[in-house]
Amino acid sequence: MKSAILSVGTELLFGQITNTNSVFLSQQLNYLGVDVMYHYTVGDNPKRLAEMIRQAFTDCDLIITTGGLGPTQDDLTKEIAAEVLHDDLVLHEDILNELEDYFKKINRVMTENNKKQAYLPSRAVLFDNDAGTAPGFALEENEKTIICLPGPPREMTRMFERKVKPYLEEKSESIIYYKMLRTFGIGESMLETELHQWIDGQTDPTLATYAKEGEACLRITSKRRTLDEAKAAVEDMIGNVSQKIGQYVYSFDDEEYYQVVGKKLINQKISTSSAESCTGGLFAQTMTEVPGISSVYDRGFITYSNQAKMEELGVKAETLEKYGAVSEETAIEMAEGVKKVTGSRLCISVTGIAGPDGGTEEKPIGLVYICVILDGQRISKEYKIRNISRKWNRNYTVLCMLDMINHMIEQKQ
Amino acid sequence: MKSAILSVGTELLFGQITNTNSVFLSQQLNYLGVDVMYHYTVGDNPKRLAEMIRQAFTDCDLIITTGGLGPTQDDLTKEIAAEVLHDDLVLHEDILNELEDYFKKINRVMTENNKKQAYLPSRAVLFDNDAGTAPGFALEENEKTIICLPGPPREMTRMFERKVKPYLEEKSESIIYYKMLRTFGIGESMLETELHQWIDGQTDPTLATYAKEGEACLRITSKRRTLDEAKAAVEDMIGNVSQKIGQYVYSFDDEEYYQVVGKKLINQKISTSSAESCTGGLFAQTMTEVPGISSVYDRGFITYSNQAKMEELGVKAETLEKYGAVSEETAIEMAEGVKKVTGSRLCISVTGIAGPDGGTEEKPIGLVYICVILDGQRISKEYKIRNISRKWNRNYTVLCMLDMINHMIEQKQ
Repeated sequence: MKSAILSVGTELLFGQITNTNSVFLSQQLNYLGVDVMYHYTVGDNPKRLAEMIRQAFTDCDLIITTGGLGPTQDDLTKEIAAEVLHDDLVLHEDILNELEDYFKKINRVMTENNKKQAYLPSRAVLFDNDAGTAPGFALEENEKTIICLPGPPREMTRMFERKVKPYLEEKSESIIYYKMLRTFGIGESMLETELHQWIDGQTDPTLATYAKEGEACLRITSKRRTLDEAKAAVEDMIGNVSQKIGQYVYSFDDEEYYQVVGKKLINQKISTSSAESCTGGLFAQTMTEVPGISSVYDRGFITYSNQAKMEELGVKAETLEKYGAVSEETAIEMAEGVKKVTGSRLCISVTGIAGPDGGTEEKPIGLVYICVILDGQRISKEYKIRNISRKWNRNYTVLCMLDMINHMIEQKQ
Repeated sequence: MKSAILSVGTELLFGQITNTNSVFLSQQLNYLGVDVMYHYTVGDNPKRLAEMIRQAFTDCDLIITTGGLGPTQDDLTKEIAAEVLHDDLVLHEDILNELEDYFKKINRVMTENNKKQAYLPSRAVLFDNDAGTAPGFALEENEKTIICLPGPPREMTRMFERKVKPYLEEKSESIIYYKMLRTFGIGESMLETELHQWIDGQTDPTLATYAKEGEACLRITSKRRTLDEAKAAVEDMIGNVSQKIGQYVYSFDDEEYYQVVGKKLINQKISTSSAESCTGGLFAQTMTEVPGISSVYDRGFITYSNQAKMEELGVKAETLEKYGAVSEETAIEMAEGVKKVTGSRLCISVTGIAGPDGGTEEKPIGLVYICVILDGQRISKEYKIRNISRKWNRNYTVLCMLDMINHMIEQKQ
C-alpha cells in the first residue's frame, strides 16, 4: 500500500510549529508495512487542499490528513475530503449529544460553531476522540482511502494508536511484529558498531537504531505471514543482541526509564524519598507520573537555596563552604538528610550545575553529583554531562538518577 | 511571490528525522514577505522529484529545495532541477579546486564521488557552503526560480542567512509582521466568537486562533510595503482585541506562562516556595526552568503522603481526617505551612486528584485546590479540571497555579 501524509494548517506554513505529526505517522505507517511516498503541507485553503488530495491519489491508495477538523470556519478538511470522494456531510446525532454532554460536564456554554463537529461524511467510519472534541474518520471510494485526523498531536496520536492502527491492520496482508529495545549509557553509533554483523546483512528480522534524547533505541522488526513466525524471529534476534549489548538495555518493551524504575519500586514496596537541587523537582515529577506510585513515594525536597539544604536536610555549613553546594560531599549529606527525616528505604539526592550560567573552569555546566541510599548500601557518583541546554542537562541528569537506582535494585537481587 | 518548500530525503519519509528545515525556511520566507503555499517531502527518487517540482511550479514562482546535493549516487536534486529548468550541469573548476583544498586541509583523501559536487547548472547563481562541501545555487527560467540548498540544518541555515536572504530581498516587494498573543482561561471557540467582528472581515491585519495544550493563541498578521506600516497595523489591532479579551492574555510575545511569571518574580524580587501534592514537583520543576530563578526560588516540598504533609508543613491530622488530603482546608494549611517554614513572600500549595485512579463521585479526578499567599494576601480556589490524562491534568494544574500567581501579582500593582 502506498500512502501520503497531508498536513493541513496555515500555522505550519508560517513555521510556527514543527510538524511532528508527519514524523509520528511516517514511523507508524512504516511499522505497519505501508510505504510513505510523500509528505504534503497545505494551508487552510479549500481549493489547494482539494487539488492536493487529488494529486496524492494519482499515485497513492491511502492519504492520512491531520488538522482542519475543528469547530472554526477555517477548518475545512472533512468538507473537502467528502467532496473529492463524492460524499456529503450529514449530522450525526450521537456525536452532537456527546458534544453537548461534554460542554455540560466542563460547565461551559457550547458555542454554535461547535455543532459543525457533528457533521461528518455519510459513508465514513468514525473514530472517537478520547482527548478532544473533533472526531476523526476514514472514507473510502474505489480502493482509495482517506483518513482524516485532528491536528493536535495528543489527540492525533491517541486516535491513531487506538482506532486507526487496528483499522489499517485489517487492510494489510502480512503481519509486522517488532520490539523496541531501550538502552542507556551507550551512544547510537556505538550501538550500531556493536551490532554491525546483524545490521549489515539485514533481511528479516531487520535492525534499526535510533537516537533519542540521551538514549539509543533499537528496533527489531520481522514481517512474516503469521504473527507466531514474526514473534519467534524477533525473539531469536533479541537473544543474539542481548549477548552483545544486554547490560545497556533497560526495557525490551519500549517503556520509559521512569516507568521501569517506578514499577520496580511499587512491586518491591520500596519506600522512596528524594532531595533535588539542580533538577528542581524534575526527578520527583517524573517518578510521580507513574500511576500507583503513591504507595511507595513519600516525599521530595527541592532544596534550591543553601539555606534550604541546611534547614531541611541538615547539610553542614562547613561542607557547603569547604566543598561547595555542587560536590559529592554535599550530595551525600543531602541523601543522608533525606534518610534521617523520612526513614524511606530508598533515598536519592542530586546537586549540579544545569546552566546556562553558573559554570566555572573547575565546576563546569553539566557537573552533577548523585547519591543513592538503598537499605544499607550507599553509592555516590560524579557525572560530567555534555552541556546541550538547561532542559537537556536536567533531563539527562534524571536518566542518570534512574540508571543508578535501577542498577542498585538489580544488584540486590 | 508564492513559494513552495521541497524537502528531499527518504529518511524523512521513514520518520527518522524531524523536518526542522521547513520550519526555519517558512519563518524566514514569511519574514521576507514571501508567501509559503506548500511544503512537500519526497524520497530520493528522480521521477517523483521531477514531477513534484513541475507540480509546484504550476502555482508558485519560487521553490526552495533542501537535501540531495551531496556526493553519493542517491543525491539527485541538482540534476533534476537542471532538467526541469532546461539547463546542463557543467564542471566548475573553481569549486573543484576548493573541494581539493578542503580535503587537503582536513587531511583526508578526496574520494572520486566528491567531484560530483563541482558539477552545477551552467546558468546557476552559486552559494558557497561555509559549513560543508556541497554548494547551493539558484536557477531561473521564465520568472520561475528554484533554489537548491544542502540538507544538514547547520549548512542550510548558514547558507540561507548569508547568501539566500540577500538574494531574495532584492526580489521582494512587501514585508510581513505578526504578533502571537497567548491566552489562558478561554477556549479557542470562545476566543473566535469574541473576536468574530475582526476575524470575519479579515483583510489586513488578519487574525487566526490556535488551540495549544490547555491554552488558546491568537496570531495577528499584517503584510505591508514597510515594516513600520505593518507594525502599526498590528499594534492597532492589538488595542482593539485587548478590549474584548485582554483579561485572558498573559503574553503578547509568544512566551510560555512559566516564563512570564518567572520573569515577574525575578524582576520584583519575590522570594518563592511551594508545596505540591498531586503535581509531584511539576510546578517547581517548571519554575526552575527559568534561568536566574535561583535568585528568588528558595525551596519546594513534595508532600505526597499525609505523613509528609503533617511533618513538613504542619498540616493537622484532624484537617486531613475531617476534610481529606484533597480539600481547600488542606491546601490552605499547606500554604500556611510553607510560609511558616520558609518565610518566602510568595507561598503556593496544591493538592488534587491527578488520576487515572483515586477519583470518587464526591471527589472526581481533576478536582484540585490551590492556595496562594503573596505578602499579606491569601487566596484559595477550587478547580474542576477536565480529566484527559494524568499528564495533561498535572500540566493544566500548573497553568492554573501560574494564572493565580499572575493575577495576584498584577492586582498588587
